Amino acid sequence: MSKPKVFEKPVGAKDYLPDAVAKLRNIEFRVLACMERWGYNQIITPTLEYYDTVGVASSTEDKKLFKLLDRKGKTLVLRSELTAPIARVASSLLKEQEFPLRLSYHSNVFRSIEEEAGRDSEFYQTGVELIGDATSEADAEVVALAIASLQAAGVEKFKIALGHVGFLNGLFQETLEGRMDAQLSLKEHLLSRDYVGYREAIKKLSLEPDVERELIGVLRLRGGDEICEQARMVSQHPIAQDAIRHLCEVWDVLKAYGVSEHVVIDLTMIGDFSYYTGMTFEGYAAELGFPVCSGGRYDNLLSQFGRPAPATGFALKTNRILEVTGKEQVKQPNRILIAYDAEHREAALQLAKDMRNDETNTVSIVITQLVTKEQDIDLNRAGYHVMKLIAE
Amino acid sequence: MSKPKVFEKPVGAKDYLPDAVAKLRNIEFRVLACMERWGYNQIITPTLEYYDTVGVASSTEDKKLFKLLDRKGKTLVLRSELTAPIARVASSLLKEQEFPLRLSYHSNVFRSIEEEAGRDSEFYQTGVELIGDATSEADAEVVALAIASLQAAGVEKFKIALGHVGFLNGLFQETLEGRMDAQLSLKEHLLSRDYVGYREAIKKLSLEPDVERELIGVLRLRGGDEICEQARMVSQHPIAQDAIRHLCEVWDVLKAYGVSEHVVIDLTMIGDFSYYTGMTFEGYAAELGFPVCSGGRYDNLLSQFGRPAPATGFALKTNRILEVTGKEQVKQPNRILIAYDAEHREAALQLAKDMRNDETNTVSIVITQLVTKEQDIDLNRAGYHVMKLIAE
Repeated sequence: MSKPKVFEKPVGAKDYLPDAVAKLRNIEFRVLACMERWGYNQIITPTLEYYDTVGVASSTEDKKLFKLLDRKGKTLVLRSELTAPIARVASSLLKEQEFPLRLSYHSNVFRSIEEEAGRDSEFYQTGVELIGDATSEADAEVVALAIASLQAAGVEKFKIALGHVGFLNGLFQETLEGRMDAQLSLKEHLLSRDYVGYREAIKKLSLEPDVERELIGVLRLRGGDEICEQARMVSQHPIAQDAIRHLCEVWDVLKAYGVSEHVVIDLTMIGDFSYYTGMTFEGYAAELGFPVCSGGRYDNLLSQFGRPAPATGFALKTNRILEVTGKEQVKQPNRILIAYDAEHREAALQLAKDMRNDETNTVSIVITQLVTKEQDIDLNRAGYHVMKLIAE
Repeated sequence: MSKPKVFEKPVGAKDYLPDAVAKLRNIEFRVLACMERWGYNQIITPTLEYYDTVGVASSTEDKKLFKLLDRKGKTLVLRSELTAPIARVASSLLKEQEFPLRLSYHSNVFRSIEEEAGRDSEFYQTGVELIGDATSEADAEVVALAIASLQAAGVEKFKIALGHVGFLNGLFQETLEGRMDAQLSLKEHLLSRDYVGYREAIKKLSLEPDVERELIGVLRLRGGDEICEQARMVSQHPIAQDAIRHLCEVWDVLKAYGVSEHVVIDLTMIGDFSYYTGMTFEGYAAELGFPVCSGGRYDNLLSQFGRPAPATGFALKTNRILEVTGKEQVKQPNRILIAYDAEHREAALQLAKDMRNDETNTVSIVITQLVTKEQDIDLNRAGYHVMKLIAE
């Protein structure tokens, strides 16, 4: 096997140059500050976790996990998301803290197979978990905070698609009882938003005409208030009815938050995480075809770590937000180059110190450079205003 | 092999709870802001690098590297420090940018064997690289910036020990010519600051009395101005003379920066990185027995990535600084809990929004909670001031 060339980095690995870092950190700071004002406390978990605990509990497909062995032969993974690690912390170090727990994070996560699609294998997520509150009030809080976070990040135009895994579960149990393969196939079409494939799959199932109509009619269940009413008529199955009741409550609270204009109820949305148990949502920016955030309720995860509790949360896909907000300029500070000769060294370095410490003004970026008589130094460094402390 | 318990994390892995995160991020922000004002632009490099490029070029012992295989069978490492990755970037993505390059970073790094000593296997470094400037002015700049960074991080009492690898190299070549094992053994004693072992090793070498005196006399070469003069007398070897000349120039510039009170020249200090080629330094806080920062000049590293250039830099050991500054309190914001009944939901959520957005005052942290008549909720949440919007 050939060695990599010296300048190469692994496939899917990425360097962020100063302009990109400034934007990324700007998003990070604003979003974390927003989450803090909503009462979410930031935590940091390790990059490496045990495969058998966090790796297995996480929502990431096994083949997408980066794995390695520790010195004792136990399998470790590079974290692929933060919800499972935070469930571990809530059940161990924070087990004495009373619910609800409000926790936030900004973190890099890893997916080993994305590289084949030309995507980053390491990227950033900024999110929250609200643990120990089963109410629709809690679900609405995280949706409203997702909206506030997207706004804090500078995403101007976006929509949140809001669904509930219970609606389709109930409807499918009612109409396709015992036909698990058919149920799974239909869900996969919806998950990949392949509505043509969904229709075709239904046609092939040889269902009663009214059942077929009902299942295809699901695709039209997208909208506002009116969808809650319509959906109540579709399936009488208690799981579906409970789901719709809960979703309508969440919708009502979102109206009280004054943010329902950003939300579309979408009952075909089931969320890509196997551990979601209730409401799920995804955020779409006007400029992008893929979600900029996703979240939902996961009431079964915490019990895997020994502290059963309902929980809900979301993660911003921070790298994608970087693409949407790329046009926005980060404010440029004053850049000053102080050129000095040996005779003026002390005065120049003292001046640089004073300018760097001056907090009454815009932040000044100050670099210094010794100039000797023999040198013919080009003092026009791009973007810098030059000051000279040089004897004539 | 037994499976790990659900709440366990890998040996050497660490969770940072909200109080620790607030302190860590406070240090991170202040130090990066300081580095920015000195003209250093932040970059982010990937966690995973090729073993054959960055892994081999890095200063970390091979057995301390976390290794894994990618899908094509190439060996990857979790980065163990940032100097080699930044040398890769300077030689590739930034190869068109003219020198000097001033780059900064804040990053987690990994060492696989530290866990056996009960230490973290993942920890944080915050540092800079100044690439493309061979002058003593550049070396003094990074030392002065290390001092400013420690002050920005809130470290009150510290000393920088300043040395030069050339002094001992020259002295040993002069006095122990060709005796490489003896040279290596003496250097190892000095590296681990085992001065008793150093003396004993010299005694065993059966040297001329005046040579023996000279080698032992090195241990007294610690101090200020006067050490420069004394050291010039110790060895006439040109490598040692060049080293002392350069170090005295650095010292003069540090006096011009007005920071020499924080610096002690220490010619027994050789730095723990095999790639240092010139000046080296370490920072010691009053309360701690181990360094809180280390740095030095590495003029041979960049050529390994195809863009030969002199370079100098340092890294703060951010986790250790966290221990030193642990007593300092992070400012506490106002924490408010708005309790409301269904009737006052809209008013309560609107009030929460206004309070969170109020930037004229201290940041307010606001959480909300629905209270129903049937519930007997304890509204005295620790640390929160409770406001009620509840009908009597």
